[in-house]
Amino acid sequence: MSAERDANDIFSEFKEHSIAEFFKKNRQMLGYAGAVRSLVTVVHEYVTNSIDACEEAGVLPNISVKVTQTGESRYLVRVQDNGPGIPKKYIGKALATILAGTKFHRYVQQRGQQGIGAAGCTLFAQTSTGKPVHAESRTASGEHYTCSVSIDTLRNKPVVENLADSLMESTGLIVEAEFAQVKYENSDHGVYEYIKRTALANPHAQIEFTDPTGKEYTFVRSVDTVPEIPKAARPHPLGIAVNDMLEFAHKSESRKVSVFLAETFARVSEGKVEELRGLVGAILDKNPGQLTWDEAEALVNAIKQVKWMAPDASMIRAIGAERIKLALSNILGPDFMHVVERKPQIFNGGVPFIVEAAVAYGGGAGRKVEDEYEGSVLRFANRVPLLFDSGSCAIMVAARGVQWKRYGIDLESQPVSVFVNVSSIYIPYSGVGKEAIAQEDEIIEEIKLALMDAARGVQHYIRGRQQVSAETSKYKTISRYAKQLSKDISTLTGTSQQEVEKSLEELITKHYPKASGGEKEEAAPEGSGEEEESMESSAEEE
Amino acid sequence: MSAERDANDIFSEFKEHSIAEFFKKNRQMLGYAGAVRSLVTVVHEYVTNSIDACEEAGVLPNISVKVTQTGESRYLVRVQDNGPGIPKKYIGKALATILAGTKFHRYVQQRGQQGIGAAGCTLFAQTSTGKPVHAESRTASGEHYTCSVSIDTLRNKPVVENLADSLMESTGLIVEAEFAQVKYENSDHGVYEYIKRTALANPHAQIEFTDPTGKEYTFVRSVDTVPEIPKAARPHPLGIAVNDMLEFAHKSESRKVSVFLAETFARVSEGKVEELRGLVGAILDKNPGQLTWDEAEALVNAIKQVKWMAPDASMIRAIGAERIKLALSNILGPDFMHVVERKPQIFNGGVPFIVEAAVAYGGGAGRKVEDEYEGSVLRFANRVPLLFDSGSCAIMVAARGVQWKRYGIDLESQPVSVFVNVSSIYIPYSGVGKEAIAQEDEIIEEIKLALMDAARGVQHYIRGRQQVSAETSKYKTISRYAKQLSKDISTLTGTSQQEVEKSLEELITKHYPKASGGEKEEAAPEGSGEEEESMESSAEEE
Repeated sequence: MSAERDANDIFSEFKEHSIAEFFKKNRQMLGYAGAVRSLVTVVHEYVTNSIDACEEAGVLPNISVKVTQTGESRYLVRVQDNGPGIPKKYIGKALATILAGTKFHRYVQQRGQQGIGAAGCTLFAQTSTGKPVHAESRTASGEHYTCSVSIDTLRNKPVVENLADSLMESTGLIVEAEFAQVKYENSDHGVYEYIKRTALANPHAQIEFTDPTGKEYTFVRSVDTVPEIPKAARPHPLGIAVNDMLEFAHKSESRKVSVFLAETFARVSEGKVEELRGLVGAILDKNPGQLTWDEAEALVNAIKQVKWMAPDASMIRAIGAERIKLALSNILGPDFMHVVERKPQIFNGGVPFIVEAAVAYGGGAGRKVEDEYEGSVLRFANRVPLLFDSGSCAIMVAARGVQWKRYGIDLESQPVSVFVNVSSIYIPYSGVGKEAIAQEDEIIEEIKLALMDAARGVQHYIRGRQQVSAETSKYKTISRYAKQLSKDISTLTGTSQQEVEKSLEELITKHYPKASGGEKEEAAPEGSGEEEESMESSAEEE
Repeated sequence: MSAERDANDIFSEFKEHSIAEFFKKNRQMLGYAGAVRSLVTVVHEYVTNSIDACEEAGVLPNISVKVTQTGESRYLVRVQDNGPGIPKKYIGKALATILAGTKFHRYVQQRGQQGIGAAGCTLFAQTSTGKPVHAESRTASGEHYTCSVSIDTLRNKPVVENLADSLMESTGLIVEAEFAQVKYENSDHGVYEYIKRTALANPHAQIEFTDPTGKEYTFVRSVDTVPEIPKAARPHPLGIAVNDMLEFAHKSESRKVSVFLAETFARVSEGKVEELRGLVGAILDKNPGQLTWDEAEALVNAIKQVKWMAPDASMIRAIGAERIKLALSNILGPDFMHVVERKPQIFNGGVPFIVEAAVAYGGGAGRKVEDEYEGSVLRFANRVPLLFDSGSCAIMVAARGVQWKRYGIDLESQPVSVFVNVSSIYIPYSGVGKEAIAQEDEIIEEIKLALMDAARGVQHYIRGRQQVSAETSKYKTISRYAKQLSKDISTLTGTSQQEVEKSLEELITKHYPKASGGEKEEAAPEGSGEEEESMESSAEEE
């Protein structure tokens, strides 16, 4: 056994590391694990940023994605958008600095929220092929340029080189990068599926995709209006954590806590301030800059005792039941569906969120794959498809918690697709790779309720279908026997076989009208008739 | 629709953020999601660091953990160890700087590897209760002090305050911190279970635990030798990525690539260098500092064509079959088990790893819980228990891939515990919270093989048990009837009932020797007899 080592000896090896070095070593945490997934992650990061940029600039997104094979396990990815472009002086920070971004500090709903995605792609490109990312952009002010971008990982600083003029004629951004240790696959977890689902949740976006065989796909936009530019919002006071309260207070320029509360949070009316005064008294007259932890805690506890108006939904941009229906019809073309848009809820930390859910039946719904269940639940967070880590995702936990069979639904054997989109200013992703929503109880519960709503909306239709299918099966069996039977009866009684057959047929048809096709329209009246009704969102119901 | 926004306007909001701010906002990524899990994460981080510190100093770990409730959803956690302590000048970096550590840059096996854990606890304490972490330490050089530690999150810099003298008499570290939004629960995912499993995988550690009710548990060490201090090792050339090759080369002080290869990597003999020369020629005579990406790529490809000796196992500290057996006996006390220690393998990036697996049957094995399957697979990475995110973990994926029933095993209905420990200098965790091993194909495959080995080792025993159990059931039924039958026969024939009963009993016992207890030893011969054999590791078999 070796001698004891002294602490000073051990700690002399102490070092600090840049976040870029950390993710270079742990790139699987960013989603770069497995060849197929790694390629999807790249496309995901670029497409997400492009749609965000277009929306922020108020333009309808036109995005083109091209994946070209350049060698064994090597692919070139090119994404072009018609967004506002990136000014030259910000290109390095935007594409090659981890934790830099416009989104991180704002209380506003966007797809990206971390300032990690695009820089992660750059890191992955340069560590897998040694090549920088090629960028090309034009902005509204007329700036246009091309350059190559990489990260100095030791310092997490961008390296921008080969600046040159660009011939781009309209505003936007092109990124092009080559990656190794990746693989294009036409599976439920591949790039094509990712883009298809992106189109599904973003009916206002037009996406063109060229796969490595050169085949071109166009996902045509089904809605011609840009979603409103997301507004930076004020947080709801209910459920706000003590440390957040303290931080907001210390940043405030108000002279009094009462004013600070009204200015910082939503729904804090004069009446509510008076209610709070009854609970915490003099704290409301303090300077917020001098608020202590204990006072902030008292304030947070008082807030919990007051009855508040629900948070304002306007700061959350859900897709909308109408648009979901259009998109599902467009892309899955189901025989029937029910779409639910729930009212905003709050989760841990006072953050409002909205759940939208749909159950679609028949047509292109419920693609059968090896792992059937996974295939039929389409998960989205702020309209971004989540393709991986389903096992640990709040959406899957909620879906597993629904007793589908109570609604006549069997996800593993019926052509059913379940759609869930969670929208929020802050999505609590379980990992840096943003592939799963953390299992927050309030979120799971709300998704479950939404799914139950949606399931209820299709149960009559599915039961009708099942009944038809059961009757058809019985009808066929009996009709088969009827042929033999009529022959036997004819021999036995001397009546003509044709006559016996005809009366038997009439008898059977009378018993199984739906199956025999005689009253087909009546068989599935919900199919078309209820479509209108099924559009009603729960939000509108109250 | 709003007017288009200009890119310069949008990007004027660009900011860089500290990694501490990032994790403050996304603490669920560090494992702080859910009240029960958050508390386990705290204990996990402190205990992991303590055991690492003891091992690095070459002392047998004595660790005491105390969890005290201080309010609703509020707990105080105190962990004390007998390690080398932390010098005063490093305490801030060790406990309150994210991405600072002694472990990150070394190629050496340790539990912690990120430099995030302890600082994450500090972040969680100060954001949930507003209180700093209290630290107390004494080092071998005689330094002894107490202080409070917190993080300046905007800059990711430590704040060390209230420095005072300490009365600690021997070397070690005490950390004590209060956390809110946490919960102590006596479940399969709770602190007690975490500590129990830690003891299981660290039989050289003595751990005392006081739960919130004041109840004290002692997990006595079952092995009295400190594991050897892990050595920093040279990576194996096979499978090394191009960017790593380039990075190693550029850091090298050797004059020639050939010398650099022999000095940097394991298993590069003169003979192997000559084989490489046949493939890449002049590259070997270059100055490694001037190696280009293409040359490094050629080198990496050449390395793949050469046959190499397997990596040296000595740099990986597995637990060892003998110790696993002792620990399992100690803590689960199963009726029978089979332990497998496999030979080192390599995964993506040239990193060697060792899988150890065991299947234990009967006794305290296979605790029945709601989620049965989860309960019966005990996952470990470098001896650290993994309690969460099982769905996305390579160990669970491998376990699900084993056809247990082929070995007579049913994890959901039998008292079976499955133990898997993956040891490596670099464990590819899927998230920053280090709760699951990423699904690398080579790792999954190797775990599967280990589990199949272990399952084979218990199948005879389990089949024997099942046979005994089936026979016992038949024996009991028949014996019950025999009583009535002998009475009837006696009445019918006039023979004495006792006599009839005796001969019937003899008849039955002859038919069901195992069940009747007459030949109990023979019934489960593997139970004791094969124990020795079951200790043989696969590593020794070749």
